[in-house]
Amino acid sequence: MRIFLVGMMGSGKSTIGKRISEVLDLQFIDMDEEIERREGRSVRRIFEEDGEEYFRLKEKELLKELVERDNVVVATGGGVVVDPENRELLKKEKTLFLYAPPEVLMERVTTENRPLLSEGKERIREIWEKRKQFYAEFRRIDTSRLNEWETTALVVLEALDEKEISTIEKPHLVKIILGGFKRVRNEELVFTTERVEKIYGRYLPENRLLFPDGEEVKTLEHVSRAYYELIRMDFPRGKTIAGVGGGALTDFTGFVASTFKRGVGLSFYPTTLLAQVDASVGGKNAIDFAGVKNVVGTFRMPDYVIIDPTVTLSMDEGRFEEGVVEAFKMTILSGRGVELFDEPEKIEKRNLRVLSEMVKISVEEKARIVMEDPYDMGLRHALNLGHTLGHVYEMLEGVPHGIAVAWGIEKETMYLYRKGIVPKETMRWIVEKVKQIVPIPVPSVDVEKARNLILNDKKILKGSRVRLPYVKEIGKIEFLEVDPLELLEVVD
Amino acid sequence: MRIFLVGMMGSGKSTIGKRISEVLDLQFIDMDEEIERREGRSVRRIFEEDGEEYFRLKEKELLKELVERDNVVVATGGGVVVDPENRELLKKEKTLFLYAPPEVLMERVTTENRPLLSEGKERIREIWEKRKQFYAEFRRIDTSRLNEWETTALVVLEALDEKEISTIEKPHLVKIILGGFKRVRNEELVFTTERVEKIYGRYLPENRLLFPDGEEVKTLEHVSRAYYELIRMDFPRGKTIAGVGGGALTDFTGFVASTFKRGVGLSFYPTTLLAQVDASVGGKNAIDFAGVKNVVGTFRMPDYVIIDPTVTLSMDEGRFEEGVVEAFKMTILSGRGVELFDEPEKIEKRNLRVLSEMVKISVEEKARIVMEDPYDMGLRHALNLGHTLGHVYEMLEGVPHGIAVAWGIEKETMYLYRKGIVPKETMRWIVEKVKQIVPIPVPSVDVEKARNLILNDKKILKGSRVRLPYVKEIGKIEFLEVDPLELLEVVD
Repeated sequence: MRIFLVGMMGSGKSTIGKRISEVLDLQFIDMDEEIERREGRSVRRIFEEDGEEYFRLKEKELLKELVERDNVVVATGGGVVVDPENRELLKKEKTLFLYAPPEVLMERVTTENRPLLSEGKERIREIWEKRKQFYAEFRRIDTSRLNEWETTALVVLEALDEKEISTIEKPHLVKIILGGFKRVRNEELVFTTERVEKIYGRYLPENRLLFPDGEEVKTLEHVSRAYYELIRMDFPRGKTIAGVGGGALTDFTGFVASTFKRGVGLSFYPTTLLAQVDASVGGKNAIDFAGVKNVVGTFRMPDYVIIDPTVTLSMDEGRFEEGVVEAFKMTILSGRGVELFDEPEKIEKRNLRVLSEMVKISVEEKARIVMEDPYDMGLRHALNLGHTLGHVYEMLEGVPHGIAVAWGIEKETMYLYRKGIVPKETMRWIVEKVKQIVPIPVPSVDVEKARNLILNDKKILKGSRVRLPYVKEIGKIEFLEVDPLELLEVVD
Repeated sequence: MRIFLVGMMGSGKSTIGKRISEVLDLQFIDMDEEIERREGRSVRRIFEEDGEEYFRLKEKELLKELVERDNVVVATGGGVVVDPENRELLKKEKTLFLYAPPEVLMERVTTENRPLLSEGKERIREIWEKRKQFYAEFRRIDTSRLNEWETTALVVLEALDEKEISTIEKPHLVKIILGGFKRVRNEELVFTTERVEKIYGRYLPENRLLFPDGEEVKTLEHVSRAYYELIRMDFPRGKTIAGVGGGALTDFTGFVASTFKRGVGLSFYPTTLLAQVDASVGGKNAIDFAGVKNVVGTFRMPDYVIIDPTVTLSMDEGRFEEGVVEAFKMTILSGRGVELFDEPEKIEKRNLRVLSEMVKISVEEKARIVMEDPYDMGLRHALNLGHTLGHVYEMLEGVPHGIAVAWGIEKETMYLYRKGIVPKETMRWIVEKVKQIVPIPVPSVDVEKARNLILNDKKILKGSRVRLPYVKEIGKIEFLEVDPLELLEVVD
């Protein structure tokens, strides 16, 4: 695979190029830097000593060389597109044009080692006017409203051809396909969020309804709005609604699609890592009501789910980690993918090979568990690993669910290790990995408040015991009846 | 079976007794009239010529004779309970006390042939004071807020022992049980209407929520109220909500139960004939939204349905007929129960044997059709017999759905007879029976309006054809593609 990035100075070719190289296991080449290395002098000096013409010659030579290489992502020089021969070469390649309006570029760049800007940043506007016709010949990505991860995600998605990672047939069809997100174009109607539209709007069909991001969408009011719109467009039972977004959006879409006309077609394109590894499989949907989470919903398997790990690249840091925690839980439960967590830096850099494997394992294992317990009668309870204490952290510390669960896993394991139930090596491995995924240390919480929280939980009667799932060794899940108050020993 | 009715003059013993005799195929005996017949003179004359003591003697003799008879319903004389020996006899029998406060009784009675009222109606209060302690020894039915059919229903239900008529196992458990309604006592939570509570409140468990009667309940607002209450009582997934009422109430209950916590237990006790023969089987539920009927709902089979034809006795005339039309449709479709419609006077008098058979056939046939087409993909379409033109009558004439369907069946049959598709004898039989069930003649409607109605129906594209279910001979359903506008020939 070869990816070429073109665009003005300050458009982010180098920054994005480096990220892409880590994401796709490609070598990163910055053409200007490569020329500097070969010439043993800076671009500014080449311009001063041999003139721009000489530089452009070297640039063309290098480009000709690079289009013969494999596994590279190239940040081209900003002026490479001026030459018609260069453009012909680049058009045969996966070349993306990173666009930002001149005002934005001026904010981003420094003049250092930019010979063309020796007269000041204002020249950007002039340069842009000269070159814009040439850039226009390439696929454009507007970076002005996107952050670096969002831009990276979009470039990778544009560059990727479809590559199937896994197909799960039961309990419902799930296809994990790198680049598969682009199939959303063919959907009859999409429910999605403003955030998804901002980044991936180019792939969405015209027929789309926008809803708020996050848990906010899961109300009867938004469900009503969806019903109104569906009635207005006379949406028939035979057609499909595609839910494109995180777990909240797919939960919401699943509920609407399962109740409108007693069920219309339903598909998911989960866009967050957490939704991909968890919410998109199993047919549970829900909305919140009167302050109670997920209290209204149905069981309704989607007709199909398209999971493209590429789109998780655009996630914010904290939310990405939550997904990793969920995948980590599935690895502990199943024993599969242990080796993925030996490369924490690959996870941090969002390497797509590692992410794809993580998603594949989690989805396959989730599907297996759901198949054995489709209506959530018992076995699915294993998925509550870490949730008993996690709940306490979530409530008392106000941390996101994923972080709280990671802490819960760590602390519950500690408790069972002290009890002599979990062996030392299992405990040490889990504690070490949790610290890598969630580097924030587990806080101690006010035991008295935690005690009250547990005692007031209507599901736990005073003195009664909870069924705690735990891991004897990685991949071997067991259950233990414990007094929840005893568990609090370890949170202090 | 023997039923004895006790109560003050004017409490309705004779009126209700006669109805019960028709409902249960019992001989009706009015004790006062029987004594008059045997003595060859009126009660007033017996009092005048031989005194009250002589009358009471004859009354006791007759009572002793009646408690040895079978298949009778007896309206006792108002004063029969004064004698302790009489009371002992009656307590061993199915004896119901029809109660109404003295003011109500005074409005109801005339003084004619009532020797005890020779001094005027005001004596009722005095008599009541003397006798009320004796009446109190019997099971009391307060008739003051009930009409005659409602009282009849309640007396029959009180008197009946359970008698199983049919058990259908699939697609979900349905038990048709005379007297089975009383099982509702054991339900964990009941959703019902004020009308049901007014009549059958004595059988409902404490834990009940009241909702409006009829279609009015099928809104998201009432669904919200139900969710609130369920959350307030912390209703768990393992428990069951029983929907007790007509089709609207069971539709509503089904939707709430299938969506609260992704599905709690669900049972139905349908109380209208239409709900018994139609809505209670098949797992379709729905609410209305934005003026569109049944546009939101799920498929969710109830865990069990208890159908007691007895409770349909309390229905208003028009609504009862709607249920008969539906049963008639099932007879046409299946060919079963043709003989029931040879006794129209039995249907009119609500004979429970005929009603039970009608309900049994309809439910069994509905269950059979649903089993073959659980998600309403084709075969269930046969149930739309009469609905194409019925819809036109319903919209343009504003008649209830059941009446409109009856007319639709008649007129669609006429059309197909004229086309030479339905044979004359089938047509004649259907037309004759429809006239018996719904004696109101089919109105002609404005063809131009009907044409517009059909053309604006989004489901019927201009010039396209509808799939019309029709009956070649009774029990043999076929389908014909017709131009809906052609159908209008017969409505003129």
